[in-house]
Amino acid sequence: MDSTGRNVPIRHIVSINDLSNSEIDKIFEMAKKYLDELPDTWGRQRIGKSMNRASHFVLASLFYEPSTRTRLSFESAMLRLGGRVITSSDPSTSSAAKGETLADTVRVIGNYADVIVIRHHRDGAARLAAEYSPVPIINGGDGSHEHPTQTLCDVFTLKTRHKDLKGLNVAVSGDLKGSRTIHSFVYALARFNANILLMPAKGMELPMHVDSRLREEFRCLTVPKAKYERENASIDALYVTPDEPHQLSLIDIAVDIKISKIKKIHAMYVTRFQKERWEQKDQDYPKIDAHFLKGSKYAETSVLHPLPRVGELDASLDIDDRAMYFQQAAYGVPIRMALLSLLLGLEDHMSLEQFAHGFSQPKNPIYDQPLATGIRCNNRNCIVHDSAETQYVRNRFFVVSNKTRASCKLRCFYCESDIDDFVLAHKHRGWYTKSILNILKLLRENDKDLIAYAGDSEAIAAGFRHKDNLSSRRRKHNSAA
Amino acid sequence: MDSTGRNVPIRHIVSINDLSNSEIDKIFEMAKKYLDELPDTWGRQRIGKSMNRASHFVLASLFYEPSTRTRLSFESAMLRLGGRVITSSDPSTSSAAKGETLADTVRVIGNYADVIVIRHHRDGAARLAAEYSPVPIINGGDGSHEHPTQTLCDVFTLKTRHKDLKGLNVAVSGDLKGSRTIHSFVYALARFNANILLMPAKGMELPMHVDSRLREEFRCLTVPKAKYERENASIDALYVTPDEPHQLSLIDIAVDIKISKIKKIHAMYVTRFQKERWEQKDQDYPKIDAHFLKGSKYAETSVLHPLPRVGELDASLDIDDRAMYFQQAAYGVPIRMALLSLLLGLEDHMSLEQFAHGFSQPKNPIYDQPLATGIRCNNRNCIVHDSAETQYVRNRFFVVSNKTRASCKLRCFYCESDIDDFVLAHKHRGWYTKSILNILKLLRENDKDLIAYAGDSEAIAAGFRHKDNLSSRRRKHNSAA
Amino acid sequence: MDSTGRNVPIRHIVSINDLSNSEIDKIFEMAKKYLDELPDTWGRQRIGKSMNRASHFVLASLFYEPSTRTRLSFESAMLRLGGRVITSSDPSTSSAAKGETLADTVRVIGNYADVIVIRHHRDGAARLAAEYSPVPIINGGDGSHEHPTQTLCDVFTLKTRHKDLKGLNVAVSGDLKGSRTIHSFVYALARFNANILLMPAKGMELPMHVDSRLREEFRCLTVPKAKYERENASIDALYVTPDEPHQLSLIDIAVDIKISKIKKIHAMYVTRFQKERWEQKDQDYPKIDAHFLKGSKYAETSVLHPLPRVGELDASLDIDDRAMYFQQAAYGVPIRMALLSLLLGLEDHMSLEQFAHGFSQPKNPIYDQPLATGIRCNNRNCIVHDSAETQYVRNRFFVVSNKTRASCKLRCFYCESDIDDFVLAHKHRGWYTKSILNILKLLRENDKDLIAYAGDSEAIAAGFRHKDNLSSRRRKHNSAA
Repeated sequence: MDSTGRNVPIRHIVSINDLSNSEIDKIFEMAKKYLDELPDTWGRQRIGKSMNRASHFVLASLFYEPSTRTRLSFESAMLRLGGRVITSSDPSTSSAAKGETLADTVRVIGNYADVIVIRHHRDGAARLAAEYSPVPIINGGDGSHEHPTQTLCDVFTLKTRHKDLKGLNVAVSGDLKGSRTIHSFVYALARFNANILLMPAKGMELPMHVDSRLREEFRCLTVPKAKYERENASIDALYVTPDEPHQLSLIDIAVDIKISKIKKIHAMYVTRFQKERWEQKDQDYPKIDAHFLKGSKYAETSVLHPLPRVGELDASLDIDDRAMYFQQAAYGVPIRMALLSLLLGLEDHMSLEQFAHGFSQPKNPIYDQPLATGIRCNNRNCIVHDSAETQYVRNRFFVVSNKTRASCKLRCFYCESDIDDFVLAHKHRGWYTKSILNILKLLRENDKDLIAYAGDSEAIAAGFRHKDNLSSRRRKHNSAA
Repeated sequence: MDSTGRNVPIRHIVSINDLSNSEIDKIFEMAKKYLDELPDTWGRQRIGKSMNRASHFVLASLFYEPSTRTRLSFESAMLRLGGRVITSSDPSTSSAAKGETLADTVRVIGNYADVIVIRHHRDGAARLAAEYSPVPIINGGDGSHEHPTQTLCDVFTLKTRHKDLKGLNVAVSGDLKGSRTIHSFVYALARFNANILLMPAKGMELPMHVDSRLREEFRCLTVPKAKYERENASIDALYVTPDEPHQLSLIDIAVDIKISKIKKIHAMYVTRFQKERWEQKDQDYPKIDAHFLKGSKYAETSVLHPLPRVGELDASLDIDDRAMYFQQAAYGVPIRMALLSLLLGLEDHMSLEQFAHGFSQPKNPIYDQPLATGIRCNNRNCIVHDSAETQYVRNRFFVVSNKTRASCKLRCFYCESDIDDFVLAHKHRGWYTKSILNILKLLRENDKDLIAYAGDSEAIAAGFRHKDNLSSRRRKHNSAA
Repeated sequence: MDSTGRNVPIRHIVSINDLSNSEIDKIFEMAKKYLDELPDTWGRQRIGKSMNRASHFVLASLFYEPSTRTRLSFESAMLRLGGRVITSSDPSTSSAAKGETLADTVRVIGNYADVIVIRHHRDGAARLAAEYSPVPIINGGDGSHEHPTQTLCDVFTLKTRHKDLKGLNVAVSGDLKGSRTIHSFVYALARFNANILLMPAKGMELPMHVDSRLREEFRCLTVPKAKYERENASIDALYVTPDEPHQLSLIDIAVDIKISKIKKIHAMYVTRFQKERWEQKDQDYPKIDAHFLKGSKYAETSVLHPLPRVGELDASLDIDDRAMYFQQAAYGVPIRMALLSLLLGLEDHMSLEQFAHGFSQPKNPIYDQPLATGIRCNNRNCIVHDSAETQYVRNRFFVVSNKTRASCKLRCFYCESDIDDFVLAHKHRGWYTKSILNILKLLRENDKDLIAYAGDSEAIAAGFRHKDNLSSRRRKHNSAA
């Protein structure tokens, strides 16, 4: 699988789900240790025991989109470990301006650096980079997809303040659709058994595929709105995580118990309107201020924000004890020091591999569309639709099936958005099928001769006929004979 | 006062007046020491005894305006001290592009770095940054306000060439209005007892508030033009600094003695037309070349320029012995090494505080306008008028009064420009006053109920009446009763 | 000659011809040593014996044009040597935005750094920088002129794969006119006795002056197209280098022997269409893919490309054993480590000077046009035509003469393009001459009174008369008398 053919497995951190719970805990443990090394004044007594560990290593910052926090905190983290940094922070002054592809760029920079942090405007770009890079890729934010190291800071902030995430009620507010930080964050909340309360701006609800992963992969239960609406009108959707693996018979009881506890919001995560993703300015974007947080429900709410903010979080909160967002930003350096330290094996060759138990990304089978035909990821901002990368991306999907529900969907290998409905054609047999059972059987058999299409019309236009029609005609033909 | 609540006082270098004369001398002493460490060839025998002092420290360059000299010499200085550097040199690729405020940015970057050098297009931006930063802010140039570290290089160049600034005749030429380097420089000249000869381009005279500070705070005497015009037609204004604190009776004598010495210009400081500050290109900008400097008056003149130059200083001078501007630029590294070393306490915990005697910034009382009403700083390029920073700036002024002259003005806390005329209203009493004595009395009493307005009409429009009118009406009313 | 007046000679690497063959070999030897230090996994066992050699040195990256590979690999090389880096990678955020000249910029940055890598859009800019810099200038690409460190990587790649360049058949394809990498590369090929096969895109043939230097300075023999056309239709021109200094009588034999070996292409060097240099997109640009390389001639061809590529080199080749271009890019770091190490004398004061035998740049006499009149370099993209640099460039040429052919041309000191035809006027005598013998004689005598013009009309317009006419008139006059 590894395109570089090296023996040591390379770990890429593209999604928060590329880290197990135990790895995340290890990162937090190390970050705490680094924090203990921090100065008691504004810098004069900095201990810096950790300062020369990385002196043989170079970090490359490869940013195709603006950044202050992510880039500078990664660079500061590397430097505070004693490492070195090379930076490409402006695509207009890099070879991207000459038309170089991402796939070529990471293959080249992977020879100059030992680890690459990448930010890109396309969903799934970090996964593409990981496919081609000879060194670890860390996703510093790819389009609206994910931003896993921000989530590490977010969860670390919550753990530091609230000890444990288990049973915590965490509201997330604003642009839940375009915010990559939200997507990584809600997966982590679910994995650490927090409850998730959605307060989206109008039309900026959590994407369908994130919602379905919460429910299907991370075992969240959604609670009918009627159950909490009276007391929590501002909440649009609510996911609770049961303490034990849920049996259908227990859901209602579990949910009722959980609901009774939603009297208190432990944390409110506010996000900026992602103006760079949407065409129009939102007129009706929710604003969190002291007035909003005045009820008893919010009396001890930790207020988080990935920053930058542009009006949705009032400055008057800055001196409020509940404001955690500057602390959250400050954790950027020790958290990233810990991640780099583990990725590069700086601590006496201790590495992430040793901690990879607990949660691990489900091993869904992969389906590679053989030709430049048939179905494509239907997220227009996915890296697969970037014309420059055409030769380097694959028409590759995870097959996510659920026998109980008789469902089968295709999840884009890069941006992880889902195709819920599709048909599957067989090149040599001339027919296509919509039957889940047939599809699953075919995918198990042999994918070389298969082509997925978005629907009947696409399959028919490509010269295929529906399997049932074909069969019935054959049967007719047979009976006539 | 310190917004971060830490015990150790943080020193910010926003204005040249944030450093005492003894501190400046200490910086020069250390810079000389660093210069002695420099290589005798072009780099091969660099001694670098100083190289690992700062290895635990990170400098952040935060530049909102173009820079080569200031940024690269600060970064080189930090690196030559053994320190580390993170850089944000392009607002279009930083979170500023997403609309983040300066106040938020420095609070965040202050967690990644131990000291921040900032450049900004707004006057007073560095002071705003200093209000919010948890680590020292060094002003690398804020609008047309100040550029204190350039002045350190300038004065160091003069001291190296001329031993002492006392009694030196220093001409400053060009855009005296828009050049921040000039403003810091003339304060330093006055403080070190040099005489200042102004040769502004037409319409680019020294700002009023800089002129008045030179006269009122730095004890400069202005000389009537008639006294020097015949021999020095090119000089527009002349400030001399008396050797001793001046008594009115001695001024004329002192001045006459000084004037007799203006036969010689010891230094000529040339500045570029600040095209980024003004709308139109100046057609008639003074050009300094060998022809201009041909008289005996200029026979030994040191020619300085903060660079870059764009035509106002002729290249033919480059090989002239009087040209000091490349040497001046070269001093950028050792001077900034010394400043960083003292700010960060690198030399066996020796720090700036220990040298803070001699001149210190006058402790003018502060007046905080309580509401978003009444008077505002009338410098349209001041940071207080940046709409993004509205929630973070205060309507804050120094009260600069002079009982002898019965004058009282408000000096903007950020950009230090003056409001010479204003009226003061009392919220509960319903009146406003223009009387200096009343104003001073009110400001001493209680500023919570006061609102300053630009003039009568603004105060009246806000519903106040003139105190005298009110009193006379009351008197009328009383007499009628 | 050295404008800085220092004793130790400074070596600038502007052209590949600024390095002797023995110096290039020394660089390769050191690069190999650095490669042996590289990690056996993706970074975990990096040895880094070389890591602290440069800790007292600062490299400045001064890039006026976009770059990824050159800048980042230079910076990575410097950091891996233990050195420090300052970067100016965007002219819009540097003092260039305020109008600062290159000559001023390098004089200033030369005080902050110990070595400067420069990239510029103007041909010859690196030579101008070298004239003013107090520290070594390394040309990171100047317009369409040269890119010597890319050539070091290219030749190192060939040597590593093919042991020796002698007799190797190397085809170069694409934009041979605009590609600076090609110009440095073909000089090196000739100097190391490879044969050069040109496959230009239509209208993008090798510039005339490069062709003539190959033939005249580097002793290449051009082979009549008829000799190889039948078997090698795609080759536009062919240069072979004889094993021994050629005598005219031996040429044909040597060529015939060489030609018989052109059955095999050892290496194919592909280049991108330099869209930033040309106004229109080329519609008919050659594309190298598996189909092109299918013949037996190409069975073992090393495929090289300086990258980035934008379509002229098919991605399907990436997994082909013949593809060397990513390896070639990877050599960027060790090669540049070696160059920096030798330039800065990091290896126990071993320096480039000690290896300067073998080839050395011919010492052509220099002709300085005394006034801002007469002939100018006729390359419109040459740095001498940059209006900002007017005061800093000289109207300076090498006089390249060949007595056998009775030819004399002027080669621009900066961009090295040739002026083949010109006339030479004598200020005091009132005439000009086109005679090569006269010109050579005049140039030997005294160049203070000479002015070169592009042709008769320019000389006549400037008030000169043709020497012969003048003489004949004089003769007439004399005979009349």
